[in-house]
Amino acid sequence: MQNLLALLDSRKFIQVRRIIQEMNSVDLAELISEIEDEKDTVLLFRLLPKEMAAEVFSYLEHDQQQRVVEGLTDKELAGILDDLFMDDTVDFIDEMPASIVKRVIKIADPDTRRQINQLLMYPDSSAGSLMTTEFMEVDRDWEVGRAIREIRRQCEDKESLSQLFVTDEFRHLEGTVALRDLLAAKDSEIIGDLMESDVKSVKTHDHQEDVADLFKKYDLVSMPVVDNENRLVGLITIDDVVDVMEEETTEDIYKMAAMEPTEEGYADAGVFAIARKRIPWLLILMISATFSGIIMQNYNSVLSAQVILASFVPMLMDTSGNAGSQTSVSVIRSLVLGEVECRDIFRVLWKELRIGMMVGTGMGVLNFIRIVIQYRDVGLASVVGITLFCAVVAANLVGGALPIAATKFKLDPALMASPMITTIVDAMSLTVFFNVAIHILPGLK
Amino acid sequence: MQNLLALLDSRKFIQVRRIIQEMNSVDLAELISEIEDEKDTVLLFRLLPKEMAAEVFSYLEHDQQQRVVEGLTDKELAGILDDLFMDDTVDFIDEMPASIVKRVIKIADPDTRRQINQLLMYPDSSAGSLMTTEFMEVDRDWEVGRAIREIRRQCEDKESLSQLFVTDEFRHLEGTVALRDLLAAKDSEIIGDLMESDVKSVKTHDHQEDVADLFKKYDLVSMPVVDNENRLVGLITIDDVVDVMEEETTEDIYKMAAMEPTEEGYADAGVFAIARKRIPWLLILMISATFSGIIMQNYNSVLSAQVILASFVPMLMDTSGNAGSQTSVSVIRSLVLGEVECRDIFRVLWKELRIGMMVGTGMGVLNFIRIVIQYRDVGLASVVGITLFCAVVAANLVGGALPIAATKFKLDPALMASPMITTIVDAMSLTVFFNVAIHILPGLK
Repeated sequence: MQNLLALLDSRKFIQVRRIIQEMNSVDLAELISEIEDEKDTVLLFRLLPKEMAAEVFSYLEHDQQQRVVEGLTDKELAGILDDLFMDDTVDFIDEMPASIVKRVIKIADPDTRRQINQLLMYPDSSAGSLMTTEFMEVDRDWEVGRAIREIRRQCEDKESLSQLFVTDEFRHLEGTVALRDLLAAKDSEIIGDLMESDVKSVKTHDHQEDVADLFKKYDLVSMPVVDNENRLVGLITIDDVVDVMEEETTEDIYKMAAMEPTEEGYADAGVFAIARKRIPWLLILMISATFSGIIMQNYNSVLSAQVILASFVPMLMDTSGNAGSQTSVSVIRSLVLGEVECRDIFRVLWKELRIGMMVGTGMGVLNFIRIVIQYRDVGLASVVGITLFCAVVAANLVGGALPIAATKFKLDPALMASPMITTIVDAMSLTVFFNVAIHILPGLK
Repeated sequence: MQNLLALLDSRKFIQVRRIIQEMNSVDLAELISEIEDEKDTVLLFRLLPKEMAAEVFSYLEHDQQQRVVEGLTDKELAGILDDLFMDDTVDFIDEMPASIVKRVIKIADPDTRRQINQLLMYPDSSAGSLMTTEFMEVDRDWEVGRAIREIRRQCEDKESLSQLFVTDEFRHLEGTVALRDLLAAKDSEIIGDLMESDVKSVKTHDHQEDVADLFKKYDLVSMPVVDNENRLVGLITIDDVVDVMEEETTEDIYKMAAMEPTEEGYADAGVFAIARKRIPWLLILMISATFSGIIMQNYNSVLSAQVILASFVPMLMDTSGNAGSQTSVSVIRSLVLGEVECRDIFRVLWKELRIGMMVGTGMGVLNFIRIVIQYRDVGLASVVGITLFCAVVAANLVGGALPIAATKFKLDPALMASPMITTIVDAMSLTVFFNVAIHILPGLK
């Protein structure tokens, strides 16, 4: 790669062109993003063969896109816009400053302009915001031979060919034909006979998470998007859905750690933006944690009499918190994957009761032995051992129940992950701890 | 759906057949899995049109597959095997009891048998275990017209057509041609001229996570698999990669909650298997948590003198632990997404230092005010406020540094998520707490 930049610097354009012609568009976009000098960026971009330029452009970061656009003439820009798929055009326009948006809209032909304006109107995270308009339509009355001829004529401008969409005269979606089935068929067969009429489609305002779920469930590579009147308006392809899946996973993981994700991602987001996403949940959790403090305070007299008890508090809190978050995270993930549903709550609780008893026994017995050896105090060892057992069982039950309960109340189960569970379980394990201590240790009643 | 089962029960086979012919294979498999009666399962399966049977079969759960296979004749089974893609065949065989495997191998034709044996040998989670052998090969010397004729002749048996693989006489992979480019070309053009020679491919023993990363990076829908001599041996398709992505995400999320995932997934795994995956990390974390206990014990005299301090311990531990896990989870996710790399460690630390100072100030000041109001004790309020500030800043730095350090030492950064960070941060915040208390509160020195 360094090599290429050196060739560029020494103006050996023919060699540069030969190298980049053989390269993959994604790699080229990565290379361009490493160029510091603004003029070199535009220069390298201009050296791209015309048929690659739009694709490379779609893989550039937004600030690189801006740089390139500012360096290109109107005519060059119009060429790129012409080759760019509509979803990539809209993604790009969405992030540009007003001056560039204006220029792009001015350059675009009327039809493109209309489509851009239409696509920009769909809300973020909707199917409409993911889709593109370059789908391949065929008529149900066509013969296969004609359809193949039409496809060969138009396919360069289409984003995905794996499914062809069959529409009626009012553009209502009637069915789909897999390109494979079309190719396997005889030239004289009729599209309508090959067509799959049980179409999986989404509406423009459906949420992208539902779109992704359909792709996963039905192993789709592309899917039609329709409006409220079932008119075909767009096409969603798997590459965009893969991005959605990543985005949704990030959101889930962030929620499990009691945060909202920032829009730009961690690396690009500002310090202030990140802090603002973290503080609210920290505050809520801190307030709930003060309940544990109140419990400690209520047992001040116990603590004063046996100050050694305090030294077990961190271990008890951490262990029960960890057990609870193991459970809650398992259950949350199962809910997301559809392995567990709300009606399974008793099955989950019964499972977690048994797991908790096993794990709790293990933890309790080990600690009992350790404390007997270390302090030679069977009473103290019993208090800690019994508390651990109870706390782990309780933690597993709470960790299993809360995510399902949240789902039941239409809340995101990911909110019931480790931090929330930890806070709740802490208060429980402290209460158990002091009560067991009062009953077992002498002189605390 | 209930309707269909009723029709089946009243032996209205023609109507049943008409309905299922229009249904999607995934939905049909789901329907079959809801049938309780073994005979009905096989009956419904037999009513499937031949061209759907294999696809529906590939979507059945393994116990349903076993049920169906046990109910079919050898001839029927041979028909299914013939239509089943090789990767689905191997997935199915992998989970069957020995008697069924034997029967399948006996029925399969010699070529299929050889391929099954080959595919079964690849290790779990390798590219070889994901791939299928039904790819479409074209010759670099062919004209486009001939290639299209060949594709139309063979395509029914091929799993994906989006890319055609170009090989030489020794089956070495030379390049790929997108079906779209082939269709857009003139009949007289030569494959070699259309071919992309910068092919993204993987080796049979590459890990599935690397395969998924390539699909994501290059927006692929299919990818060739080669052996060590660059001979083409298989094809991986995006639908299987989507499953891998889910699996890898589950693994990451589980690790972040200090567990190993079980092989079968939470809903299907046994209680004992799950407990065994949870105990090891709980133990390790418990042992590290005892350090916090030792710290508490060292300050026993401080605690005895001011037992009120103990009641702030849960809140301090929880808040610093939460702040640390917010940071570590953000950084771990950025590492997974490739937004942050090892060399960014100082950038991350500088960012987290500033975030920590903001968040810490907020938390500290709020608590200072609360404690002044509640206890009318400025000294105590200062101790808690200062500790919170220091603990949050330290938690953010530790949470930012450890995942990157883990990556540096070739460990999985997900191991450095909430539970591990919490344990470390606990010990730190307690140390700060008692030391600040000794310096500020009267009579503790």
